[in-house]
Amino acid sequence: MFRKLLTLEEAKAVLSQHFTPKPIGTEEVSLLEAYNRVLSEDVISDLNIPPFNRSTVDGYAVKAQDTFGAEENKPVMLKIYGEINIGELPKIKIADGETAEIVTGAPIPEGADAVVMLEHTERKDDVLYIYNAVGKDENVMKAGADIRKGENVLKAGKLLGSKEIGVLAALGKRKIQVYKTPNVAVLSTGAEISELGTKLLPGKIYDINAYSLSTAVAENCGTPIYLGVFPDDEFKLHKVLKNALASADVILTSGGVSVGPTDVIPKTLDSLGKPGVIINGIAIKPGKPTTIAIVDGKPIFSLPGHPTSALLVFHLLVRPIIQSMAGLKRRKILKVKAFASARMISAKGRRTFIMVKLKRDKSNRLLAEPVPTGLSGAITTMARANGFVEIPENQQFVDENEKVVVCLF
Amino acid sequence: MFRKLLTLEEAKAVLSQHFTPKPIGTEEVSLLEAYNRVLSEDVISDLNIPPFNRSTVDGYAVKAQDTFGAEENKPVMLKIYGEINIGELPKIKIADGETAEIVTGAPIPEGADAVVMLEHTERKDDVLYIYNAVGKDENVMKAGADIRKGENVLKAGKLLGSKEIGVLAALGKRKIQVYKTPNVAVLSTGAEISELGTKLLPGKIYDINAYSLSTAVAENCGTPIYLGVFPDDEFKLHKVLKNALASADVILTSGGVSVGPTDVIPKTLDSLGKPGVIINGIAIKPGKPTTIAIVDGKPIFSLPGHPTSALLVFHLLVRPIIQSMAGLKRRKILKVKAFASARMISAKGRRTFIMVKLKRDKSNRLLAEPVPTGLSGAITTMARANGFVEIPENQQFVDENEKVVVCLF
Repeated sequence: MFRKLLTLEEAKAVLSQHFTPKPIGTEEVSLLEAYNRVLSEDVISDLNIPPFNRSTVDGYAVKAQDTFGAEENKPVMLKIYGEINIGELPKIKIADGETAEIVTGAPIPEGADAVVMLEHTERKDDVLYIYNAVGKDENVMKAGADIRKGENVLKAGKLLGSKEIGVLAALGKRKIQVYKTPNVAVLSTGAEISELGTKLLPGKIYDINAYSLSTAVAENCGTPIYLGVFPDDEFKLHKVLKNALASADVILTSGGVSVGPTDVIPKTLDSLGKPGVIINGIAIKPGKPTTIAIVDGKPIFSLPGHPTSALLVFHLLVRPIIQSMAGLKRRKILKVKAFASARMISAKGRRTFIMVKLKRDKSNRLLAEPVPTGLSGAITTMARANGFVEIPENQQFVDENEKVVVCLF
Repeated sequence: MFRKLLTLEEAKAVLSQHFTPKPIGTEEVSLLEAYNRVLSEDVISDLNIPPFNRSTVDGYAVKAQDTFGAEENKPVMLKIYGEINIGELPKIKIADGETAEIVTGAPIPEGADAVVMLEHTERKDDVLYIYNAVGKDENVMKAGADIRKGENVLKAGKLLGSKEIGVLAALGKRKIQVYKTPNVAVLSTGAEISELGTKLLPGKIYDINAYSLSTAVAENCGTPIYLGVFPDDEFKLHKVLKNALASADVILTSGGVSVGPTDVIPKTLDSLGKPGVIINGIAIKPGKPTTIAIVDGKPIFSLPGHPTSALLVFHLLVRPIIQSMAGLKRRKILKVKAFASARMISAKGRRTFIMVKLKRDKSNRLLAEPVPTGLSGAITTMARANGFVEIPENQQFVDENEKVVVCLF
């Protein structure tokens, strides 16, 4: 009746023997559409940023040494020779004893090496009174001070947000190369599962997993393809999975994988091609019925029907695969240390994951509070949790007040 | 020469006197398209989840008391009366001494109040041998155990991710009401600014801000509308801003707001309508030239031209407005405590924001390291920073090793 299940590490090893996740290609996008995409090439700057010495203030371009000794009560006087326009090469050259008006961002003219702030000057006709000395390079942003020509500014695998897109704009990149997003087909199985928007008949429940998993795919830079709800019918499942294999890069199913008599998923997966099912059950709780197949070189993850189990197994096994296929440099999972607010009991011989909610006690200690019910069938268990605590196979429980590590979702 | 600037708090107070950010409307979307949208109504469950008592395992539905006393060496025997199908109302009723086969997720039949796991049973024809007693409700998920009918499951203002979308799917919501995303027009000004993808002429730099700010808008649930680069020309700016006011809910400009002679932004903003400019300069560093106007009841934020200044002021003043208009419940800014890795010097009389990168020292203390250069003109300053340290107006510096609070981006 009992069979030896793979541990989580064994399952990961088997999966990586059969499948190496890699990006599925690259494409060019406009920088305005690059938010949340993943850069597919190292970006080397082909210019200095700024491209020229710039003034960082409004004021007067000077030779710094001409201002030495200037004080509030003892101004230095310089002759004003016109003004530097912003956005063009300065036509003026500054000689000893001379200055020119300059605005923020304008190029420093030849001969000048500093800028006196407007606030520290007074102008009378063509004579400038300077009340504060400046040092060499003061109020000047040197060419290349922000980014040097030839600098590797961003690396392939970087997720693009406002800061990175700002950097790419500085380099003038109107279009950039990003990884294509992997297509992930998602379907639910089970005679009890109803499509949303239909009347719920007795004995039925609405499809949760195809929706939560599709969103989890999008959260990890994949493109979900919703296929719908299918009965536990080998013929129909074979057909929809065969079609999905033609267009999707990864397939996620949920339900129909436990040991019950109507479970047709493993049989169907084996019928699709070689090697077929490579993992059928993992010694974890929740998530034991998880089944993984490889067909046409593509992974098919058959997750448990219980919503919280399905999302947890997605987090443990599917997420890293989708992130790698999206080209994302593997991100570390955020972890925090906390104290168990109650005893957490593990399942005999299985790696146990306890969903927890973080909160602070009166003395401001961070507590990991197990989310009540422990029913992996409950979607609200997952919705209420901030993360999970992992209890090893050989440990029976974590005691109240014991220190735990919480992996955050 | 010097004028009294508003403090950050005064500027926020003036802004909130003139403008109260609120959502601009709601729309219906399919649940499959609801990722990253903001729920616009409280969702009350109109059914129990699960809708009926369900088995959480594969096994046999029983009256718990019939199994009392069952042990490995002393099985209890029950008569098997058929099986319960999943996805329909059970046709079987369990009487004393009877049982029926049941699969995970199937409804518990009338008369039964527990399920014995398959693994703890043995079947011989129509007789079931039970080797483990079960208690009442064991392996049963009761109707409403996940979500009770009438329960307020999600509140308006919730950003929708995989967990929330799973909950909405459980309720059968194929379509939901979400807030419309505010349209935010973004333009850059300055004779030195070049459009991306063009050849960079001497004295020019590429447009950074329109790209980084557009992305920052998207990161906060707004829809950016890129308008392009404009010279410091009152007539042209008046025209583009007038048009933008007709379609956008918020306008962001950057550049052209310092005290230099070519700054036409404040004049142009005043020419657009009443009240026009309400804030012209704030006692913060960076970000001093920030100018804010209200025209046709819409806010126009004119941010500094320096990329890091522009993103910082966005973070301080624009982000909360866009989030509120997107309907998001105001989220707390994440803060961490760290030690200053070097002295941080403030600007006299101005609230000073020092961009910092977080790292750990040898003894695993979290350090806030000021990002070098301090040049707010550098986009890489922002790109390298994890957050900022705020130094009050009346404080001259934060010393090395002093404790600081880092606000994370």
